[in-house]
Amino acid sequence: MVVVMKSGASDQQVQAVIDRIRDCGMEAHVSKGTERTIIGLVGDERQVDFDSIAALAGVEQAMPILRPYKYVSRNVHPETVTIQVGDVSVGKELVFMAGPCSVEDEDTTLRIAEAIRKAGAQVFRGGAYKPRTSPWSFQGLREEGLRILSKVRDETGMPIVTEIMDAADIQIVGEHADVYQVGMRNMRNYTLLNELGNTSKPVLLKRGDSATLEEWLAAADYIFRNGNHGVILCERGIRTFENYTRNTLDLSAIPAARSEACLPVLADPSHGTGRADLVEPMSKAAVAAGADGLMLEVHTEPQRAWSDGRQTVTPEALRNIIDACRRIRDIQA
Amino acid sequence: MVVVMKSGASDQQVQAVIDRIRDCGMEAHVSKGTERTIIGLVGDERQVDFDSIAALAGVEQAMPILRPYKYVSRNVHPETVTIQVGDVSVGKELVFMAGPCSVEDEDTTLRIAEAIRKAGAQVFRGGAYKPRTSPWSFQGLREEGLRILSKVRDETGMPIVTEIMDAADIQIVGEHADVYQVGMRNMRNYTLLNELGNTSKPVLLKRGDSATLEEWLAAADYIFRNGNHGVILCERGIRTFENYTRNTLDLSAIPAARSEACLPVLADPSHGTGRADLVEPMSKAAVAAGADGLMLEVHTEPQRAWSDGRQTVTPEALRNIIDACRRIRDIQA
Amino acid sequence: MVVVMKSGASDQQVQAVIDRIRDCGMEAHVSKGTERTIIGLVGDERQVDFDSIAALAGVEQAMPILRPYKYVSRNVHPETVTIQVGDVSVGKELVFMAGPCSVEDEDTTLRIAEAIRKAGAQVFRGGAYKPRTSPWSFQGLREEGLRILSKVRDETGMPIVTEIMDAADIQIVGEHADVYQVGMRNMRNYTLLNELGNTSKPVLLKRGDSATLEEWLAAADYIFRNGNHGVILCERGIRTFENYTRNTLDLSAIPAARSEACLPVLADPSHGTGRADLVEPMSKAAVAAGADGLMLEVHTEPQRAWSDGRQTVTPEALRNIIDACRRIRDIQA
Amino acid sequence: MVVVMKSGASDQQVQAVIDRIRDCGMEAHVSKGTERTIIGLVGDERQVDFDSIAALAGVEQAMPILRPYKYVSRNVHPETVTIQVGDVSVGKELVFMAGPCSVEDEDTTLRIAEAIRKAGAQVFRGGAYKPRTSPWSFQGLREEGLRILSKVRDETGMPIVTEIMDAADIQIVGEHADVYQVGMRNMRNYTLLNELGNTSKPVLLKRGDSATLEEWLAAADYIFRNGNHGVILCERGIRTFENYTRNTLDLSAIPAARSEACLPVLADPSHGTGRADLVEPMSKAAVAAGADGLMLEVHTEPQRAWSDGRQTVTPEALRNIIDACRRIRDIQA
Repeated sequence: MVVVMKSGASDQQVQAVIDRIRDCGMEAHVSKGTERTIIGLVGDERQVDFDSIAALAGVEQAMPILRPYKYVSRNVHPETVTIQVGDVSVGKELVFMAGPCSVEDEDTTLRIAEAIRKAGAQVFRGGAYKPRTSPWSFQGLREEGLRILSKVRDETGMPIVTEIMDAADIQIVGEHADVYQVGMRNMRNYTLLNELGNTSKPVLLKRGDSATLEEWLAAADYIFRNGNHGVILCERGIRTFENYTRNTLDLSAIPAARSEACLPVLADPSHGTGRADLVEPMSKAAVAAGADGLMLEVHTEPQRAWSDGRQTVTPEALRNIIDACRRIRDIQA
Repeated sequence: MVVVMKSGASDQQVQAVIDRIRDCGMEAHVSKGTERTIIGLVGDERQVDFDSIAALAGVEQAMPILRPYKYVSRNVHPETVTIQVGDVSVGKELVFMAGPCSVEDEDTTLRIAEAIRKAGAQVFRGGAYKPRTSPWSFQGLREEGLRILSKVRDETGMPIVTEIMDAADIQIVGEHADVYQVGMRNMRNYTLLNELGNTSKPVLLKRGDSATLEEWLAAADYIFRNGNHGVILCERGIRTFENYTRNTLDLSAIPAARSEACLPVLADPSHGTGRADLVEPMSKAAVAAGADGLMLEVHTEPQRAWSDGRQTVTPEALRNIIDACRRIRDIQA
Repeated sequence: MVVVMKSGASDQQVQAVIDRIRDCGMEAHVSKGTERTIIGLVGDERQVDFDSIAALAGVEQAMPILRPYKYVSRNVHPETVTIQVGDVSVGKELVFMAGPCSVEDEDTTLRIAEAIRKAGAQVFRGGAYKPRTSPWSFQGLREEGLRILSKVRDETGMPIVTEIMDAADIQIVGEHADVYQVGMRNMRNYTLLNELGNTSKPVLLKRGDSATLEEWLAAADYIFRNGNHGVILCERGIRTFENYTRNTLDLSAIPAARSEACLPVLADPSHGTGRADLVEPMSKAAVAAGADGLMLEVHTEPQRAWSDGRQTVTPEALRNIIDACRRIRDIQA
Repeated sequence: MVVVMKSGASDQQVQAVIDRIRDCGMEAHVSKGTERTIIGLVGDERQVDFDSIAALAGVEQAMPILRPYKYVSRNVHPETVTIQVGDVSVGKELVFMAGPCSVEDEDTTLRIAEAIRKAGAQVFRGGAYKPRTSPWSFQGLREEGLRILSKVRDETGMPIVTEIMDAADIQIVGEHADVYQVGMRNMRNYTLLNELGNTSKPVLLKRGDSATLEEWLAAADYIFRNGNHGVILCERGIRTFENYTRNTLDLSAIPAARSEACLPVLADPSHGTGRADLVEPMSKAAVAAGADGLMLEVHTEPQRAWSDGRQTVTPEALRNIIDACRRIRDIQA
């Protein structure tokens, strides 16, 4: 931590800060500038509440230096974690997770899954529990949806990723899914994250729409530090003033997260843009930026989808996206 | 819903949209403009997935007209709900909820509570379960914290408001708290909201830091429609580019929420600004904007607080804030 | 400036930073922590480009400590500047600047001005040059508008504030206006700011919709340091994801700006909210937060206004706002 | 425009809106829904001030349907404009504009230019007039900088792009530059845009950091409709809450702008990220998303750059970026 004193802070005020730092078992280094005095902390500042130091008289700012996460940091784990999902080694080879926003009736869902598999996707996605802004919108088929997802795996061999909304559902969702998906609304549901850290299945952790990169990686650390190292990050857009797109897909977060943390990073251009016509260019851009794969909303009849039709592409479009992305990936190598 | 066709959309495309709308059991009204054709839906559009209509060929935009909430709307409930918390009728008279960010040891917490009560606050706040960005930060005293809160009520007579982070904790938190607090990170935890709707205790629902007014009111509807009408809204700042303050306290949301919905609205200038020196002016501003009360972080020694010291004021400052706010409220009446 | 080295930075890298700082004629103080080394600069860092230091090998972050402004700082000018506009001492007493968004025909404008004067406003506002997002929208009456504004002053005695869009118009606008208004789109038009610093008339400087508090005060410094101390700040809302309101009026910027700088601060709740029904509550809130006055869009027939009718209030509403604000101000004193 | 009446609006209120629309010479189509009445306008709504209609009694919302721009729209100009800059046909082939943030002394600038040319860039960029947040930062070499830029063109043959900050400088900057650059701070300086529309040199128009896609294209329309069709758009990042990067580079704006407008679109990953380590991945991502080229900050010694060193790459890095981007572009074709 660096503590910046106000210009005009008294010697007593400076000393009070130093004393407080030492009370916490850390060392303080003082630099007197022409306008301000700056005090540096020596030790693991994560144990100190920097807001309380900021509340001391004469302090202008107390700035953290260390990250809010430890274990997912490249400093601790220099190598990218590889996570096995079905036949795919996520983190090593490109992965494409595709499917409808919501699980629909069994026939439709199986038909979509088959088309998606043929188009080259390796993992099937579909929501059984649907977090919806309005209580009056369709909330998902729930347990019935999970049953249909199991059927998809049985029939197509594709592993399943599906959203979990509450720690109480870990057991039942785990019986049907191969990968737990934490949606952006639950990225800061720390009870859920902590308990997923005690499971042995991979977790796909979407970035919250108002989460900074550091907060996202700290959320991953909640899972990782409990022993579950199978955390796959997924950038899905942040909330900004721009309303042409549903969210603003922050592709710079992909190389940044890969540089700071030891985890694979996917992109979700469907939610990230909310517009089917932008899914292909942004898919290619994500892979060019270094993404380890994509999560995409795909439906055989987007205009018949039970939710999110506007951002859904067809299996044919999916095939083109996968082809283009693989070629871009080959260049990177 | 209003569907705007692309300029150059064919008659068949227009007809396909009309057919689709009628399939959903609604009526369609068509306006042909010089550049575009516009189709209006007649019926309750909340039952239709507007994204799927947006996915039809030739459609440029499909814009919802109805709000994503129903029951909390002033159209349904013209009168503001009054919620009894201890001796205070929230929604009728100004309420001040105050206390430390985190529940601390019993002695300190009791001392703070007594000072706060004398300063004029009617409800005690304090966090036992602390959602923290970093897994390495202090996570709250949990059950031990709840026990201390019960002691505070016993000793001071003040009702307790404290945060709940997971639906599984409804029982235990309800044994100690008079008001459940849903923090900004859980505003979109729909499992939690749904289950709180089945309880009989008031819920203080903070606005998510990336939630629009409509999304916030829709979250309230999750609780309200299940039968629990005791929902108190609390504006606590949204996330913007400005970093002088911790968040940007959106005071316009107070008169807006009061105008759109039937619920009382508080403000939290402590989290809303993150700076003790801004708490008093923003408290007064919130009441002048029509707030039904305030939630404030108060500690006898802010610089010793276990968390959030920078935004914490003293009981003396609290007394001044309460006095000033009461005088502003008197003018309003 | 504080330079934070990467964990693992070599001694040579640390030395290179120190050498670079000394090359700039400043001193460096080094603190070696358990994870990182921190280097503090001693001297006026504004002369150093901190991005170049951030580019040195082994540097993780280079954080500025000093503000980007000097002369408007309370450290340099402890007393609030008082600015005379007609009979009003802005900074000492509440000022209300009101009028239509655009100057309209002479008769309408005079009728509005007379009604506004009677309602208690002291300064007339109206746009002759209108910056409009679309080149196809009404761009203002320009010179003809300025002539009408002069007529308003002659007939009502009210001083005039009107927007200037380009440095080339300083002469002609100055012939008709008593206060130059710099709109939010021009807050970073440094050529204009520099030249307004060479005039002797007050400047009302609106905050840019993506400007931080520091950037806004730095813009004021462009005017102030050239010798024109008559700078009136005006908060008018920032751009956020919320779309219920046109902008998000950041009232915390009012006490913050008053605390950091020596200048009076107004609020513009008309642009800040974009909704006539929110103008009164946000006007009162602004004054309760410490605003030195308000700028308001007022028209005798808002639904006939040539622009911005949705956020325009009537002279009767203005009278109520002024009365309520004066009573709130009296409490503050 | 679509006018949505409040639920409960009276027939007289609906009729008043219809009358007002007809007064403007347009037609109104009425749809009565179960909860609301919706009125569609038939005609060119750009001539109507929709805020004034929104101010009529009983109106809930008035939503524009048409874009705020006309001439740059693909509806008017289906083909992408090709703009000749030196030997490059911008819009047809990839263009790389590179150089230091600020023009420095002649020797350094020439040395950088030569290295950049060899690395494969076709256009030289460098700032002579520097818009800086703080009046105390280096403001550029101004006329002396322009002279050095001319020298660069003479010695290397590379065309020059440089920033213009004020309409009064059009003449002098035009004598030295081949392309006028409008920086993000001036995207809404409509006086400057209008006058650049009367010149015959290409204009590189950066997106404002709080500008929506529509506002950016409307700004381009200010130039285009005056006769200068040589407008090159450049996405350079928007302002969001994320502070890991300097701005958030909104790559989805590239395919979106290319789809809506007839203009070539570049990306500036230097300002867009503010971090040298993210420039390469985001350069590749931009080209994969369909960018027509890049603008990059390059310096032979980034840590010696007079400004923006942290986001500046070396000529060697530039060569790798150009190579990778060309290979990605080849795949696209």
